Parts: sequence; C-alpha cells; structure tokens
Amino acid sequence: MIERVAIVEVGLIGGSFGRALRHHGFAGRIFGVSSPTTIKAALDAGAIDEGLPIEQAVPQADLVLLAQPISRILEIVGGIDRLLAPGALVTDVGSTKREICARARISIRHGVFVGGHPMAGKESRGVEHSDPALFQDRTWFLTPPASGGLDRGRAGEFVEWLRTIGAVPSAVSAEEHDRLVSLSSHLPQLLATTLASLLKETLPLSDTRLAAGPGLLGMTRLAMSSYDIWADILATNPDRIAAALDAFIERLGTVRDQVRAGERDPQILSGTLGSLFDSSADFVKALRKTHT
Amino acid sequence: MIERVAIVEVGLIGGSFGRALRHHGFAGRIFGVSSPTTIKAALDAGAIDEGLPIEQAVPQADLVLLAQPISRILEIVGGIDRLLAPGALVTDVGSTKREICARARISIRHGVFVGGHPMAGKESRGVEHSDPALFQDRTWFLTPPASGGLDRGRAGEFVEWLRTIGAVPSAVSAEEHDRLVSLSSHLPQLLATTLASLLKETLPLSDTRLAAGPGLLGMTRLAMSSYDIWADILATNPDRIAAALDAFIERLGTVRDQVRAGERDPQILSGTLGSLFDSSADFVKALRKTHT
Repeated sequence: MIERVAIVEVGLIGGSFGRALRHHGFAGRIFGVSSPTTIKAALDAGAIDEGLPIEQAVPQADLVLLAQPISRILEIVGGIDRLLAPGALVTDVGSTKREICARARISIRHGVFVGGHPMAGKESRGVEHSDPALFQDRTWFLTPPASGGLDRGRAGEFVEWLRTIGAVPSAVSAEEHDRLVSLSSHLPQLLATTLASLLKETLPLSDTRLAAGPGLLGMTRLAMSSYDIWADILATNPDRIAAALDAFIERLGTVRDQVRAGERDPQILSGTLGSLFDSSADFVKALRKTHT
Repeated sequence: MIERVAIVEVGLIGGSFGRALRHHGFAGRIFGVSSPTTIKAALDAGAIDEGLPIEQAVPQADLVLLAQPISRILEIVGGIDRLLAPGALVTDVGSTKREICARARISIRHGVFVGGHPMAGKESRGVEHSDPALFQDRTWFLTPPASGGLDRGRAGEFVEWLRTIGAVPSAVSAEEHDRLVSLSSHLPQLLATTLASLLKETLPLSDTRLAAGPGLLGMTRLAMSSYDIWADILATNPDRIAAALDAFIERLGTVRDQVRAGERDPQILSGTLGSLFDSSADFVKALRKTHT
C-alpha cells in the first residue's frame, strides 16, 4: 500500500501532484523535500504535510517522486538507493527517459524504479502556480523496467493513483519515449527558437513588428522557453534530436526545391505542393480532435 | 474626393473594409462586385450600398479596392484600365506585391495604382464573418509607384481613410514587402506544414496524440490554412520564399551540428546553444510587446 509519499522538489509538477493526490482522497502522508522557502509555500498550498530533509523523507516513503530538472534527477537516482525502504517505488518526471532509466537500472537495488513523464506544464513555474487539475486528461508516460509489472504491486497502485487524479498513464520503452518526444516536442522547440533567431538577425525589429500577425507570434511563442530546462533535454537526447532535425531539414529542402520548380512547372504547384498542404491540414485537424 | 468606392469581391477583407468605412463615417456610395449570393450577404451585413457588374461599378468609382485572391487580382489589373475613370485610385489586398505592381505598371494608364496588403485576417472567410474592427491596430502595407505620392491627392485621402478605420499604413517597396513577408509569414507557414507532414509520415497518429501538448498544437496550427490562398502566394514569391527556406535550413543545420557536438562538449551546451535560446527568447518578448 502507498501510504507515505516523498516528493523531491515541490515545484509546479511536484506541488500539483501532491495537491492532486490530496484532492482525490489520498489519506496517507506527503513529505516534501525542498528549500525552506519552497516548503513554506508548499505547506501553504496544501501540497505536502511536512517538509523533511531527503535523508529523513525517503526512508519512510512507499513512493518517491523525483520532480526536479533532469540533471538533478540523474544525481539523485545515482545516490538514493542507500536511503530507500525495501520495495519502495521510485519514479520521476524528467522530459527524457533513456539516461535516467539507465542510471536507475545500475543504481537502484532496494526499490523499484519506473520512469515517468507527465505531458503537462505551464509557463509559470513554482508551487505557487501548482494546480490539482494540472494532469487532467494529460498523458503520463511511464517507462517500466524490462521486467514489466505496471499491473501489480506498488507500481500498479501508482498507476491507479495516476488514473484517479485524471491523468492518462501510457507505458512506452525509454527508447520509444525519447524518439517520440524528439519529434513532437524537441523539434518544434528548436524550430521556434531557430525561426526567432533568423528573424532577429535578418530583419530590423521594427519591420518584423509591422509584419507580425498571429501566425508568426504562434510560431515563435515556444522560443520564450527557459534554457535551464532545455540544456538538460539537449544533453540527454542529442542523437534523437539530431535525427529529428535531419529528417526535418531533408523534408524542408524538398519543399524548397518544389517551390523553386513551381515557378516553371504549374503541375508542382497544383499537384505536389497542393497535396502536401491538404494532407498536412487533414492531419492537424485529426490531431486536434481529441484536444479541442 | 473619394465619394464612390468599388469593392471587387466582397469577402472577409472587402466586406470588412466596406463596413469599416461606413462605421467611421464615410458618407459616399459603396458598390460591391461579387456573385449574387455574396451581394445579398454583403447588403445584409451593411458592407455595400449596391451590387453592380464590374463594368458598371468601376467607371463610377474614385477608389477601386481589389479584394480577391492574387491570381484574380492579376487578371483584373491586366484588364481594368479601359473601365477606369480618369485619375481613379486602384489598390488591392494581395499578400504578395511584386507581380501585381509590375502588371499594374504596364497596364494601368487612366488611373493610379497603389499596391496594398492589410496584415489582418481570420480563419473564417466570407462577408458573413466581416468585422468593421478587423484592421484596428493592424499594419496595412502600401507599395506606392516610383513617383511616390502617398501624401497627396486620392492616394493621400485613401491613407487618411486607412488611419480613420484604425489601420497603420506603412509604405514599402514591393521588393521590400515580398522579402519581409517571405520571412515573417511564408516561412512560418511552410515550417508548420512541413512539421505536420513529417509527424504524419513518421509516427502513428495515436502516438502523436499521446505526446501532443499545447506547444505542438501551436506549432502546427497554421498547417490548417487553405491551399487556394497559398498556391497563389507560392506562385508569385517563389524566389524570396526559397531564399528564406535556404537561410532557415542553413541555420537549423548549424543548430543540429551544435546539438550533436554538445554530447561531447559541454561548452557548446552552456555557451553557444544557451546564447541562442536566450537571445531568441529576448527577441520574442520584445516582438510581443506591441502585440499583447
């Protein structure tokens, strides 16, 4: 039974998880591990019952949620085993999974590690912005160990809690996860950042302002993301991200060649590029059907 | 004095222009040239006073606004001269300007042509969705002839009407215009379409749905645009668009190389890519300052 939960770093995600558990009837105890200022805010927000140092929180916990940036998760995963109660479930919320799961595989012996990645967030960070409904209808990827076991024991119980707080648990391998998000998340981020950088260095800001409509603002919004999260993502998924960029560059090069050829060959404009636009439009409409 | 206006194609843009004129006190007469169904809707919406065939509307007009797709504007510009009253001002709303202005330069003799491009629109089209506030605070690019003259005569009066309806008139050369929008509008459109097409052909839809957050949906929204507008844009600005794609591909290739190199060289992650993210974030924040 999961009766004691340790949330390591009670920020937006950790704090929302604690509040969501409480909101949905979790009757056990929730420990928070964070700086004194954050612990105070987390207590005020009702995200935790008590702030404790990691050495005191983790040994009491049936479930340990690591809700830090990836680089900190990697450090903690490498050193947490000596603190774990036998059979404790350790999970995390890092945006890439291969390195974290590999480190856990060699480091965690006394407990069980299941990687996690909730597809939820906000532009504002910190427990002050936490929300018990943050995970509602959002995918929560889980990367179980090779032995599996998401359907029973502590891991099974954790999956049930995820469903209870409204999330949609979805099991994938760490390899599948990192490829999927390289295309669906890391590539779009780098497109937005690169577009902003090209405009910045090619046009006077005043001209871009004159010409900027909702389309451009939408395509550059992600470029406002904070780099401290992205440094870790780029560092832990570089091969997949580079492969996604390769595939995109190749495809965009084909589009460019077709635009150039369309000048002399109307068939390319009415046929090839028309099909590209139409099929992309259909795809996006289908993609949005579950989201609007 | 502009006392009679002919709006050729009373759709979203043409209809909004007619309603905006009326809303802001234009006391003259507004003729609409469109299909009988559209004329009825335009009369109902208060966008025009009367529907007329082009042969009857244009000869009476002091101002002719061509509010059709680019390919139709090109046709009309090529044949409208024989209908124009001496000194009439002809303008348009096409999203590219070089071809339209070049055609006008050789075809329009009895009147004066000033190219135009209001940076306003909506996802829904048709006069039913017209809005007298559509141009409020939006740039309205104008490409005056080499002889200039936006500060006097009919053209000067038109510029005053644009200001009166809330738009921000901005004079550029047709060449500058087409380069600017190739970067600020055409490139973002092709990035969204190409991203959607890559995802569609690389991942199962169900996987993309699981992984899709607001970021991905924002970066693919433009891909829902209708191709009948884009076919004309691609056909009339291919060199500039290809150049914008070239510049983007080169820059994205550099980003890919840096992501790959960052795996072995932490300096690239903390330095080069960090600077790219930070300066892009600053740029987008500055860009949005006038827009939010």
